[in-house]
Amino acid sequence: MTADPVQPEQLPADGPGPGRPSRRGFLRGGATFLGGAIGGAAATFGGTAAWGATRPSSSSSEAPDQAGRATVAFRGPRQPGVGTTPQAFATLLALDLVDGSDRESLVRLMRIWTDDAERLMAGRPGLADTEPELAAVPARLTVTVGYGPGVFAAADLPGRAPAWLRPLPSFGVDRLADAWSGGDLLLQVCADDPVTVSHAARVLVKQARTFARPRWLQRGFRNSPGTVAPGTTWRNPMGQVDGTGNIDPAAEPHLIWHPDGSAGWLAGGTSAVVRRIAMDLDRWDEVDRAGRENTIGRRLSDGSPLTGRHEHDTPDLEAKGPNGFGVIDAAAHIRRSRTQDPHERFLRRPYGYDDGPGDTGLVFVSYQADIDRQFLPVQRRLDELDLLNEWTTPIGSAIFAVPPGVGPGEYLGQALLEG
Amino acid sequence: MTADPVQPEQLPADGPGPGRPSRRGFLRGGATFLGGAIGGAAATFGGTAAWGATRPSSSSSEAPDQAGRATVAFRGPRQPGVGTTPQAFATLLALDLVDGSDRESLVRLMRIWTDDAERLMAGRPGLADTEPELAAVPARLTVTVGYGPGVFAAADLPGRAPAWLRPLPSFGVDRLADAWSGGDLLLQVCADDPVTVSHAARVLVKQARTFARPRWLQRGFRNSPGTVAPGTTWRNPMGQVDGTGNIDPAAEPHLIWHPDGSAGWLAGGTSAVVRRIAMDLDRWDEVDRAGRENTIGRRLSDGSPLTGRHEHDTPDLEAKGPNGFGVIDAAAHIRRSRTQDPHERFLRRPYGYDDGPGDTGLVFVSYQADIDRQFLPVQRRLDELDLLNEWTTPIGSAIFAVPPGVGPGEYLGQALLEG
Repeated sequence: MTADPVQPEQLPADGPGPGRPSRRGFLRGGATFLGGAIGGAAATFGGTAAWGATRPSSSSSEAPDQAGRATVAFRGPRQPGVGTTPQAFATLLALDLVDGSDRESLVRLMRIWTDDAERLMAGRPGLADTEPELAAVPARLTVTVGYGPGVFAAADLPGRAPAWLRPLPSFGVDRLADAWSGGDLLLQVCADDPVTVSHAARVLVKQARTFARPRWLQRGFRNSPGTVAPGTTWRNPMGQVDGTGNIDPAAEPHLIWHPDGSAGWLAGGTSAVVRRIAMDLDRWDEVDRAGRENTIGRRLSDGSPLTGRHEHDTPDLEAKGPNGFGVIDAAAHIRRSRTQDPHERFLRRPYGYDDGPGDTGLVFVSYQADIDRQFLPVQRRLDELDLLNEWTTPIGSAIFAVPPGVGPGEYLGQALLEG
Repeated sequence: MTADPVQPEQLPADGPGPGRPSRRGFLRGGATFLGGAIGGAAATFGGTAAWGATRPSSSSSEAPDQAGRATVAFRGPRQPGVGTTPQAFATLLALDLVDGSDRESLVRLMRIWTDDAERLMAGRPGLADTEPELAAVPARLTVTVGYGPGVFAAADLPGRAPAWLRPLPSFGVDRLADAWSGGDLLLQVCADDPVTVSHAARVLVKQARTFARPRWLQRGFRNSPGTVAPGTTWRNPMGQVDGTGNIDPAAEPHLIWHPDGSAGWLAGGTSAVVRRIAMDLDRWDEVDRAGRENTIGRRLSDGSPLTGRHEHDTPDLEAKGPNGFGVIDAAAHIRRSRTQDPHERFLRRPYGYDDGPGDTGLVFVSYQADIDRQFLPVQRRLDELDLLNEWTTPIGSAIFAVPPGVGPGEYLGQALLEG
């Protein structure tokens, strides 16, 4: 899996790989190349595999600074934006195909998005980009495309849709709004600069205009680049350390990707679940710290499990307190989301949203090879019992098949649309 | 003005002042203190005036990185967030006082906001902060408070309101929505991290809950920290270099602040104009580059005036082209916004907004000592004739008196409320 765009969770996307120097290492070690020798440093990146490597883009009138210059490769066996260490900003857009769409129109749209995504991710303007200067700061831009059930219907390829590609079953906790659910196509646009995300999303939506119309748009954020130490686990809007137990895409790629050699067009692809989860922060405010920690099973201060001392200590679900009850509550979120089944795990890639007082929550995004086998059992358990449900409400839900990455000369989804 | 929190536009807020070393200078010069000697570097800042200086905050469990650690001083003769070099993210909130508000309730609210703003800007939790860990990354957080006409009515001090504190006159270009206009109180919350802005805004709104209710909220962004080179002028969502001709708060403080020695409670204060300006990007797309450059009077590539070669060249409004017409159009934005009157200038501090396809524009914010003398004449000229009006529409408008900064032992607005 060395030619894979996935990156270990603990490293920045431009972090060290075989034979590649660590830019962070340079910074922390106090190297002097920040003074201007960026081009020279870039050359050392260029000597290694292009797939998924992060490289400074070509120079531009915008004079992007270090964090703005970093790029993620568009072409490779996997789509970018899945194993990529989460950028600071995400826009997730669902689009619906216009009436009369067919395989030919889908191919045309995929060719356009392929071209524009590749250009934009390299820090170059899209084709016919009306604001080309706004493309000059790639800031680790990634564009990830997914297919809802409608794509297979429009392409007249119903038999090629994976079995798990259907709306999630209704859960008791759900209060789904149509305005935040479903969609024929997914565009996930992520970068470390919100100007970049805004521009790229606009270019891609504009170019799709004759083929598809926006259905919903969700904007999420994490910490800005350079504001928290590398490797710090993100805190969600409830203040919880969120993502400690996440899988490492480099260590367990089989949990995310359909193997390259597997049969069918989805080899090298994955699936995306996007759920909008509202957080009732005003009622959460009424819960004291002990209650909050009991709800999750982790300490607020550093995310350590209530049975451990450090964030990454394995929770001891058997440990009993002096009263004989579990130290980690029977309904605690980490107990209910865990399982002995090593397949009931998936890559979480959530962002926070804050659209004003009372309108805050999580743009929950997960990637997994198989929604039915990996995501659903966990979601069923949490729906059945999870203390956190008292303060969180899913208000949107959508699922997508994510086609494999795009090799040289190929376009997005080619294995499906021409297979 | 050495003890003033204003900063030259070209420098980061933590940039060099008299006797203060430049952190950027360290970075560019390849100094090694990034490896861990932050505390030592902080000490060199501490030796100079505390007013408005940017200093690393105390350590925390969040381990904020360099850009996250920077703070702006809350106390000083001027409120922060005006002369402060614009941070990457802004939330502007208007609140309306609850019925029955009086001077006493205003004093209580101002004491609360004073305390919480000071804490949060230092990277410490607000009082009774329910998510204290989210306060650990100050990232140059600033909180700026303004008073609408309703404050003077509630405080029974109608005679103390400045003459210019009234809704702007209706302009022909306006299509104002009540939902984006007016308000008794302004909270401008800015930082280089969106998590910080979100948390701080929530704390301040929550603590105000018994006194005031949110009326509108506008979220804006610029480039993330470290993504564009320091000193790069921001591009707005239309792709224009925006802010080249802005005033330098350090060089022309009299354009912003009521002089310290002047009579009345507003000495050391200013005024804020907040307008939400929608941009019709889809129709702007139909304009070619020559047309776009003619609209503004500047080149898209680098912001240089059509009569000059570099961004900061002074536009030559007299220059004629071969056909006898002005090189800069008679209705070009830079011609119409300029004047021979040196007082018809103000500090612009705008942000972009992007709330989805078709909902993009500018959170326009300006600061000036006198709205009537400085802002209105310019706005009247632009309303009368400005090519840009074809694609921009003001949809919200609000004005506020911004009380002076808060000295040791004082609270926000004390000179008004106890004067």
